[in-house]
Amino acid sequence: MTSTIALLSAGPGEPLEPTTIERRALRADDVDVRVTFCGVCHSDLHALGAETGFPLVPGHEFVGEVVAVGEDVTAFSVGDAVAVGNIVDSCGECRMCLAGQENFCESFPTLTYGGTDRVDGSPTLGAYSGRYVVQQRFVYHRPDKLDPAAVAPLMCAGITVWEPLRAASVGPGTRVGVVGLGGLGHLAVRLASALGADVTVFTTTPAKAADAAALGARAAVISTDADAMAAERGHFDVLIDTVAVDHDLAPYLGVLDLDGILYSIGYLGPVTVQTLDLLVGRKRLGSAGSGGHRHTQELLDFCGEHGIVADVEVVPAGDVAVALDRLARNDVRYRFVLDLRDIDEALSGN
Amino acid sequence: MTSTIALLSAGPGEPLEPTTIERRALRADDVDVRVTFCGVCHSDLHALGAETGFPLVPGHEFVGEVVAVGEDVTAFSVGDAVAVGNIVDSCGECRMCLAGQENFCESFPTLTYGGTDRVDGSPTLGAYSGRYVVQQRFVYHRPDKLDPAAVAPLMCAGITVWEPLRAASVGPGTRVGVVGLGGLGHLAVRLASALGADVTVFTTTPAKAADAAALGARAAVISTDADAMAAERGHFDVLIDTVAVDHDLAPYLGVLDLDGILYSIGYLGPVTVQTLDLLVGRKRLGSAGSGGHRHTQELLDFCGEHGIVADVEVVPAGDVAVALDRLARNDVRYRFVLDLRDIDEALSGN
Repeated sequence: MTSTIALLSAGPGEPLEPTTIERRALRADDVDVRVTFCGVCHSDLHALGAETGFPLVPGHEFVGEVVAVGEDVTAFSVGDAVAVGNIVDSCGECRMCLAGQENFCESFPTLTYGGTDRVDGSPTLGAYSGRYVVQQRFVYHRPDKLDPAAVAPLMCAGITVWEPLRAASVGPGTRVGVVGLGGLGHLAVRLASALGADVTVFTTTPAKAADAAALGARAAVISTDADAMAAERGHFDVLIDTVAVDHDLAPYLGVLDLDGILYSIGYLGPVTVQTLDLLVGRKRLGSAGSGGHRHTQELLDFCGEHGIVADVEVVPAGDVAVALDRLARNDVRYRFVLDLRDIDEALSGN
Repeated sequence: MTSTIALLSAGPGEPLEPTTIERRALRADDVDVRVTFCGVCHSDLHALGAETGFPLVPGHEFVGEVVAVGEDVTAFSVGDAVAVGNIVDSCGECRMCLAGQENFCESFPTLTYGGTDRVDGSPTLGAYSGRYVVQQRFVYHRPDKLDPAAVAPLMCAGITVWEPLRAASVGPGTRVGVVGLGGLGHLAVRLASALGADVTVFTTTPAKAADAAALGARAAVISTDADAMAAERGHFDVLIDTVAVDHDLAPYLGVLDLDGILYSIGYLGPVTVQTLDLLVGRKRLGSAGSGGHRHTQELLDFCGEHGIVADVEVVPAGDVAVALDRLARNDVRYRFVLDLRDIDEALSGN
C-alpha cells in the first residue's frame, strides 16, 4: 500500500479537501504512477454535483511518471513518461474488448474514479492525487517532447473527439464542422486539421471566431445567425457537435451534405430529430465517447508526430475550487489542468 | 392532349371515382406510357386522408408500355417495357441532381402526384389511371422477363429499401436485420439476401416468421420477446426499420454491433433516441427515402438479374376501395397492385 494525498469530497455538496488515501499494493500487472498533472473535465463537475458516489476523488485524464512496476510488467519501466484516461480495467474477453474498444466493454469498463475494482471490489478513486496504481493495459506511453500538462486532456477530451474523426475516416479534404469551441471542440479542430480536413467552427460566441483560425480552422460561423447557417447548407461531410446542453440539431443536420454524419458527443441526454431531416440527403446521427486502447495509443502517437496538445490553464491543486467554479461558467480556454507535482509534499513532511 | 380514365378523389373524404382527365400533349422529351399496373402505397392512404391536395389521383409506382415518344427522346421507343416511380422531374442542376440523387433535389423534386409541373405549373395527377405522360429522365427500362404487376412496387417500396442497403455497402456476410415485414420489409429481405447478406427479420407477428424464411431470411425474431431480443444483442451491422408507426428504437439499437447503423425508413415523424444508446458501440441512426435515377435503374437491373419482384395481390381498378381499406388494416402480403389495363375501355366506348 502507498499513502498519497488526494482531493476528496466526503459527501454530496462537500468541498474537495486534501485527504490521505491508500493506493493498493502493486499487483503483478500494475504500474504505480506518480501523477504530475490531471485535467479538469465536465464529468468531474457532474460527479461532484451528484447525490451518490461518495467519498469521491475526481480526475480521469492524467499524466505522470512510472515509479514502480509489478513483476509481470514488461512494457513500462521506472521513469517512463505515461498517461492514463478514464478507464482502468475491462473484462478483456467480450466482443468489444477483443475489438480494442474496451470503452464499450459489455460488462462495463472500470472507470478511473467512481468505478469498482474488478479484483477486490474496492471503489476507484481518481487522479486528483499524487499517485495512481493502474493495470498496465490502461497505461499509455506519452511523447515526452510534448508539454505534459497539455497532454493530460488528450486522455479524455482528446480521445472522445479522435474516435468519431477516425470512425468517419476524416482525412485530406473532408469538410468537418466542429460545433462548440470548448475542451472537446478545440481539440477536434486541431486534430481534424492535422488529419488534413477543411475545418469550420460553429460557435455562438463571436469572440471565439479568432481562436478558431488560430487552432487551424478555415472559417467560423456564428450559429445563431440564420443567414450564415443557410449559406452553409449542404457543405459538410462530418460534424462533431460538442455542445454540452440540449439543443436543436435541425440547423446542423441542414449543413450536412449527402450521406453526411453528425456526431453528438457533448450532450448525453435524449435527442430528438425529425426523420425527414435525416431522410433528405440520407444523413446520419451518431455518438461516441472515450476510446479503447488501440485508438488511445494511436492518438498519443499522432499528437507526438504533429505536436498537438490541448490549450490549458494550469492551476495549483489548492485552487481546484476556483477552477471548478470557472469551468461551471465555461470560463476557460480550453481546459483546466491541476498541477499535482507537490501535493504529496505535506505527506512526506509527516 | 390525351384523354384517360383516372381514379380521382374530388375532395377530402371523397371516394376515388373513375373520371376522365387529360394528359398533356407530348413535349420533346416526354414519354407517353400506357399504365398497366400501379402499386398501392401507404403514401396513397395518407394523401387521401389529408385536408388538402385535391383533386387527387394517387399512384406513384407503376409499369406500362411506351405508346408514343417526343421528338428528342432517344432512349425509349414505342412498345418498350417501362416503369416509373414517385418522381417525374427535378431541377437537374443542383448538387443533389448532379450527384444522381434527384429525390433530394434542392428545389424539391416534382412528385408523380400532388406535385406541380415545372413547365406549366399544373398539378400532377398520379398513375391510378390508364395513361401517364412523363419526362424521359424519370422513365426506366424494366426487365421484361419479370411479372410486370410485381415490378410496380419496386419503384417506390423497392428503391426506398435499396438506397440504404447500398449506402451501407451491404454485401456478402453483412448481418442485416429487417424490422417489420410489409411492403418495404419483404423487399428489404429479398434484396439484402440477394446481395449476399445474412438476414434476420424482426416482427411482432409470429405468423410472419415462416414468410421470413421463404423470402430469404435466415432467422426471425419476435421483437416483443425481451429474451429473444436480448439474445441478439450486438449481432447486427445494419437494420432497416420499416415500421410505419412511432416506436421505441432502443431495443433495436441494442442489437447493433460496433459502428452499426439503423435506417428508420417507415415512420416519418420525430424520433427520440438516448444519446447513450448511440454512444455505447458508436452506433448511428439514419434514414432514406425513394431514390435517384442511377440507383433506380441499378435496382431494376439487379432485380432482373436475380429474378426479384414484390409479392403482390393484383386487384381490378374497380376494387381500389377494398384494397385501400385492407391496406389501412395491414391486411396484405405484401403489396396491392391495381390492374389498370382495362380502365380506358369505357373511354374508348364513348
